[in-house]
Amino acid sequence: MAERPVAGSGQPDILTRKSDHLTIITDGRGRQQSRTTGFEAVHFVHNALPDLDFAAIDTATSLFGRRLAAPLLVSAMTGGPPEAQAINAAIAEACQALRLPLAVGSQRIALEGRGDAGLRGLRRCAPDVPILANLGAVQLNCDMGIDDCRRAVDMLQADALILHLNPLQEAIQPAGDRNFAGLLDRIAAVCSALPVPVGVKEVGAGLSAQTGLRLIEAGARLIDVAGLGGTSWARVEGERGDQALRDLAAPFADWGIPTAQAVADMAAALQPGVTLVASGGVRDGLDVARAIRLGADLAGQAAGALPAACAGVEALCAHLEQVIAQLRIAMFCTGSADLAALRQAPLLPPLEIKPGGA
Amino acid sequence: MAERPVAGSGQPDILTRKSDHLTIITDGRGRQQSRTTGFEAVHFVHNALPDLDFAAIDTATSLFGRRLAAPLLVSAMTGGPPEAQAINAAIAEACQALRLPLAVGSQRIALEGRGDAGLRGLRRCAPDVPILANLGAVQLNCDMGIDDCRRAVDMLQADALILHLNPLQEAIQPAGDRNFAGLLDRIAAVCSALPVPVGVKEVGAGLSAQTGLRLIEAGARLIDVAGLGGTSWARVEGERGDQALRDLAAPFADWGIPTAQAVADMAAALQPGVTLVASGGVRDGLDVARAIRLGADLAGQAAGALPAACAGVEALCAHLEQVIAQLRIAMFCTGSADLAALRQAPLLPPLEIKPGGA
Amino acid sequence: MAERPVAGSGQPDILTRKSDHLTIITDGRGRQQSRTTGFEAVHFVHNALPDLDFAAIDTATSLFGRRLAAPLLVSAMTGGPPEAQAINAAIAEACQALRLPLAVGSQRIALEGRGDAGLRGLRRCAPDVPILANLGAVQLNCDMGIDDCRRAVDMLQADALILHLNPLQEAIQPAGDRNFAGLLDRIAAVCSALPVPVGVKEVGAGLSAQTGLRLIEAGARLIDVAGLGGTSWARVEGERGDQALRDLAAPFADWGIPTAQAVADMAAALQPGVTLVASGGVRDGLDVARAIRLGADLAGQAAGALPAACAGVEALCAHLEQVIAQLRIAMFCTGSADLAALRQAPLLPPLEIKPGGA
Amino acid sequence: MAERPVAGSGQPDILTRKSDHLTIITDGRGRQQSRTTGFEAVHFVHNALPDLDFAAIDTATSLFGRRLAAPLLVSAMTGGPPEAQAINAAIAEACQALRLPLAVGSQRIALEGRGDAGLRGLRRCAPDVPILANLGAVQLNCDMGIDDCRRAVDMLQADALILHLNPLQEAIQPAGDRNFAGLLDRIAAVCSALPVPVGVKEVGAGLSAQTGLRLIEAGARLIDVAGLGGTSWARVEGERGDQALRDLAAPFADWGIPTAQAVADMAAALQPGVTLVASGGVRDGLDVARAIRLGADLAGQAAGALPAACAGVEALCAHLEQVIAQLRIAMFCTGSADLAALRQAPLLPPLEIKPGGA
Ligand SMILES: Cc1cc2nc3c(=O)[nH]c(=O)nc-3n(C[C@H](O)[C@H](O)[C@H](O)COP(=O)(O)O)c2cc1C
Ligand SMILES: Cc1cc2nc3c(=O)[nH]c(=O)nc-3n(C[C@H](O)[C@H](O)[C@H](O)COP(=O)(O)O)c2cc1C
Ligand SMILES: Cc1cc2nc3c(=O)[nH]c(=O)nc-3n(C[C@H](O)[C@H](O)[C@H](O)COP(=O)(O)O)c2cc1C
Ligand SMILES: Cc1cc2nc3c(=O)[nH]c(=O)nc-3n(C[C@H](O)[C@H](O)[C@H](O)COP(=O)(O)O)c2cc1C
Repeated sequence: MAERPVAGSGQPDILTRKSDHLTIITDGRGRQQSRTTGFEAVHFVHNALPDLDFAAIDTATSLFGRRLAAPLLVSAMTGGPPEAQAINAAIAEACQALRLPLAVGSQRIALEGRGDAGLRGLRRCAPDVPILANLGAVQLNCDMGIDDCRRAVDMLQADALILHLNPLQEAIQPAGDRNFAGLLDRIAAVCSALPVPVGVKEVGAGLSAQTGLRLIEAGARLIDVAGLGGTSWARVEGERGDQALRDLAAPFADWGIPTAQAVADMAAALQPGVTLVASGGVRDGLDVARAIRLGADLAGQAAGALPAACAGVEALCAHLEQVIAQLRIAMFCTGSADLAALRQAPLLPPLEIKPGGA
Repeated sequence: MAERPVAGSGQPDILTRKSDHLTIITDGRGRQQSRTTGFEAVHFVHNALPDLDFAAIDTATSLFGRRLAAPLLVSAMTGGPPEAQAINAAIAEACQALRLPLAVGSQRIALEGRGDAGLRGLRRCAPDVPILANLGAVQLNCDMGIDDCRRAVDMLQADALILHLNPLQEAIQPAGDRNFAGLLDRIAAVCSALPVPVGVKEVGAGLSAQTGLRLIEAGARLIDVAGLGGTSWARVEGERGDQALRDLAAPFADWGIPTAQAVADMAAALQPGVTLVASGGVRDGLDVARAIRLGADLAGQAAGALPAACAGVEALCAHLEQVIAQLRIAMFCTGSADLAALRQAPLLPPLEIKPGGA
Repeated sequence: MAERPVAGSGQPDILTRKSDHLTIITDGRGRQQSRTTGFEAVHFVHNALPDLDFAAIDTATSLFGRRLAAPLLVSAMTGGPPEAQAINAAIAEACQALRLPLAVGSQRIALEGRGDAGLRGLRRCAPDVPILANLGAVQLNCDMGIDDCRRAVDMLQADALILHLNPLQEAIQPAGDRNFAGLLDRIAAVCSALPVPVGVKEVGAGLSAQTGLRLIEAGARLIDVAGLGGTSWARVEGERGDQALRDLAAPFADWGIPTAQAVADMAAALQPGVTLVASGGVRDGLDVARAIRLGADLAGQAAGALPAACAGVEALCAHLEQVIAQLRIAMFCTGSADLAALRQAPLLPPLEIKPGGA
Repeated sequence: MAERPVAGSGQPDILTRKSDHLTIITDGRGRQQSRTTGFEAVHFVHNALPDLDFAAIDTATSLFGRRLAAPLLVSAMTGGPPEAQAINAAIAEACQALRLPLAVGSQRIALEGRGDAGLRGLRRCAPDVPILANLGAVQLNCDMGIDDCRRAVDMLQADALILHLNPLQEAIQPAGDRNFAGLLDRIAAVCSALPVPVGVKEVGAGLSAQTGLRLIEAGARLIDVAGLGGTSWARVEGERGDQALRDLAAPFADWGIPTAQAVADMAAALQPGVTLVASGGVRDGLDVARAIRLGADLAGQAAGALPAACAGVEALCAHLEQVIAQLRIAMFCTGSADLAALRQAPLLPPLEIKPGGA
């Protein structure tokens, strides 16, 4: 495995790396193969006689005091690289149009002054919806501190800062930042110091209920499980490298906590006042409905929204409307007038054939 | 998703839509893919020594006071479109010849006076068997009322009226009728007002035991679960549209309650005097036997009988005789002299290998 | 389905039918597809340190007072058709050479005087091993009686008569004999009247423990479950016919009680003094070992031995020696010095990973 | 099956046989097909917030008093054949460089004075790491005794002698040594007589907990389960022969105790002071981590390391470093600072969707 470089030495290629990610993920090489989100095992009981007018179904919710048309977050993807500017703008405009929250990708490049991919202009595009700032938590062990977190929030007039945890990605990435010692205390310090709520997310390997609870105790107000079943950062980082790196990464393509399992576990342990986001392999509005049913407040989509986001505002709006329409169909066919009802919708047990007879 | 049109605006294309359905279903594009009826998990214990003469096996039963040669219903398929005339006639003649009940498809087009596909002549072809009239229950929330229900029954001198519930189909269909609010009361009103029994069915996503019980309380005398595993109306409606509609529908191709599960659940909750029909993916006479074993009174077949029905009376008779012959073989090899015995036939538990040893 | 013919009317083609069977089975079209014997789920615990000399492993057993070198029966296959003469001779010579029991196929053709395929000469080829005579039990309801049973035994100087039960095959076969009413009493009469023990077998759909017990009460001294997982008579009879017959038979290709399950169930209910034969899909000597472990006294092989039997004595000897060698390997690697020990050999439970941790 | 030859008669071809093995295994024909190690069912709970610096993770352990950089053994492969010399040298140099233990293959050829493949030079290449001598236990029933065991150890200045048990391989191999009677006593005698610890291993079919305990009582200080899921000696020996031998071996390609199961069972029964090695199908460092988690002290790899070993020291070092790097990643992402922590890392239960609802 490549040696961990001296602090900062890996940075010259961070722009390239981020661009590689976009390519590898949009062409499908970053997806999981054998293990899945677990959502496919969640079957609603069909309600053939919903006491509802489809047109009256209400998918609204709120986040950090702002009203949302639906519980759907466009997850953190692009922070820095130049080609990200158009993507970020499309996301912001689409989310503003549809009243959905958006998260940006890591703002490290921008904080280092090497291009902000239009981050400073995003709030103008999206004045009314929650914008979530983003930084790698491990940076708090490197060269970033509470001030940088504040600057990340200010750059966006963000409603919250999301810190991402990605030990697997950092461990596989040749020049990864791999000192996670003492990070919980540093996260706690950020939580107390910042004027906005702080959330924590993984990037595709999942947060366990135990880790989630430690983070909530440390002050996190939002937990995004970002579980297994969608983008695999082991695969993405492997694909960026030579055969040796691909081999190193291969056994970890399936590593992690499946999203449905992470959400269900975390929901069972959650305290009121903390927002639970289900992301990692959310494919469509039926997965959004399943996530809500398992206890999430919002579902987040990254890779699934990326092709549309690359194609522009219109395509992204169409994509997100499609996802919401599917959520509405799932609500209709479970007789759920709103998200609170959906959260109680009955699920099918596995079919059991009782043997025996006369 | 397409906007819900003002009442009636979707009607000019209802004829085309019905024709599209026939094409898509006969060429196989309407079938389920990954989830199944559950019938394949129902294994009878083979009885190698049935105390029976095969020739004496009795498959007879009755429906709404009429004697049936076998518990096999040709399910609702075609109501209106012109090419349906030949199909309906073939179904009526075959059912009369074999003493089987038949159901027609939605009579909405006929009630609106836009062609009755020979519905008025059906009773003449099938004087002795139960004929079931058909209307979409949601029409009771649109432009149809109790009088239309009466007219639907009269048009056929039907033995009963079946109202179908299809929220998933309506939700996906671009100009679907999607106001299901208050429908239960309207169904109850029809049940009290009509001179014939009223039944309720789904169209391929299944009726849960809970919904079934609500309908029985409202006065339904027949419940047809029409469950998951056969024709998928999400797929059929998706196939009729553009890529966006196909994408919208895709996650719902597998939505619903598998037929075997719906039947077993409903049977466990059923009250005497209510007829339980198992339909949705019934492939052959072995599935009919399984349906009876799980508690159904009749099994219904739509898509499975359609190709033969399109080919004419003779082909349809041959097809239905084949299904009945298979039912008889299943009865023979379980030692069941009649349907009451079949209902008690022992089922195999899963094979369990006990570990351990000396 | 074809009408049941008047008694005897189907006989002109019985010779052709038997030849068709040989062809269809040797070219592989008669094998099960989706359900299996269940043997593949039986895993022995490997014993890396057997306290044994492989050369001293003893596979001997006995049947009806005759010593057998191994618990392996060449199951009933050919009775009548002319090309069967060579097959029967090869089986008899090979079984004599290896000291294994053999069963002949139905002797009905021979009893009717239409060719005996060398049956009368078999005992000369195989003076020292058990020979099992064979008749369809349903013939007792047609034109055969106790005298015919006696003649079948005498023709072979057989050690026992095996009656086969094949309701599924008869039900699918166009001119099948399908009156099984009262057969148990007739079987009981044969059991009391005959000077040799009487056994009963299925032909590939299995005998349930309940049916087995009824037969034992009626006097049967050998039960051959002949279960699901090998030759499917629904498939074989379907393959002999036109498309309609194939369609009729198709759902029943998987009908029956898997051999391993039938053996385990029957063994649990068995009384001493009754021989239990496991047949139906026995592929090799490891399956023989599994059958013994589940409680069988002998394993029987029909289709699996047929190609070698067609190729002649030498090929059949080589095949049977191979099967016995595999049985010996299984005994060696479970530390079983003899069949009694093998019957107690430990089986592996399914792997269970206990979750949890610190 | 071939007759067991008189003692020693099979020896002229032992050199060829060993070469065949190398070829068949490196070209992949020796791998299991349908049953697996079971490791793939072991899923760690991802720890997104390990309180660790990756660089500080400690994989060190020890064996027979020598310090190891990681719990990874290069398992017994080559003893005698001339082409083995280069392989053995590469293994020794790589293991010395990385501080890993190595095992040699059977030293029987060398003890018989027919070439030692450089075995006598190995200790010079690897002065600081454990070297494990190797002999087939069954040889103690043939022409070898305690003195030969001592000579095997001396030849290598070995830290321990490993006796391998391979009844399945011997049973299939045409001239196999198949007298395992009384072997436990002979093993016990070796254990008491030798100045170094004695271990026992299988070669790919697994040691059961019961066999393991018997061996420990006899004095074994190391147990290597060498379970099912990797190299199948039934397949390898089958591939070396003609069609008849392949057929004989075929049912046994899947015979044995899956490695994960053997390790978990043995660990539950183990006494302190005995080293438990998990081998058989260990593919990568994630499997090593799983083995440790299930209770092993070391994981061993044979076939998986063979291609690199054939390619030379550098390739083998790269391969082993990769495996260790993967182990470190698994430790990092479970928050395990050392092997003791990894042994306690939480595992995921299977995803359970609780049905029901409002
Ligand atoms: C192209 C791309 C870039 C990403 N960059 C970031 C990032 O900078 N910060 C972050 O927290 N997560 C990042 N993620 C992770 C996502 O936010 C999300 O947690 C993960 O991809 C799982 O969701 P998915 O399966 O819907 O893609 C990125 C994902 C993608 C696809
Ligand atoms: C071509 C076609 C048209 C149908 N039209 C109607 C209809 O008008 N009314 C109705 O209640 N069900 C209708 N159905 C649904 C069937 O009655 C049945 O519930 C459903 O197709 C599931 O059965 P299957 O899997 O055997 O097709 C139709 C089905 C088909 C295949
Ligand atoms: C070609 C052939 C002919 C058979 N004929 C008879 C028969 O006449 N009588 C009988 O009892 N069983 C007959 N059987 C059934 C076998 O005895 C056996 O029960 C069945 O084939 C299942 O075993 P298998 O899977 O090893 O073939 C026949 C089987 C074959 C393959
Ligand atoms: C080429 C080759 C030669 C082997 N020779 C021996 C041997 O001489 N002695 C021994 O104890 N095991 C021998 N083994 C077995 C291995 O030590 C090991 O137990 C087995 O292959 C399972 O591990 P694997 O799946 O990683 O290959 C050999 C394995 C291979 C691949």
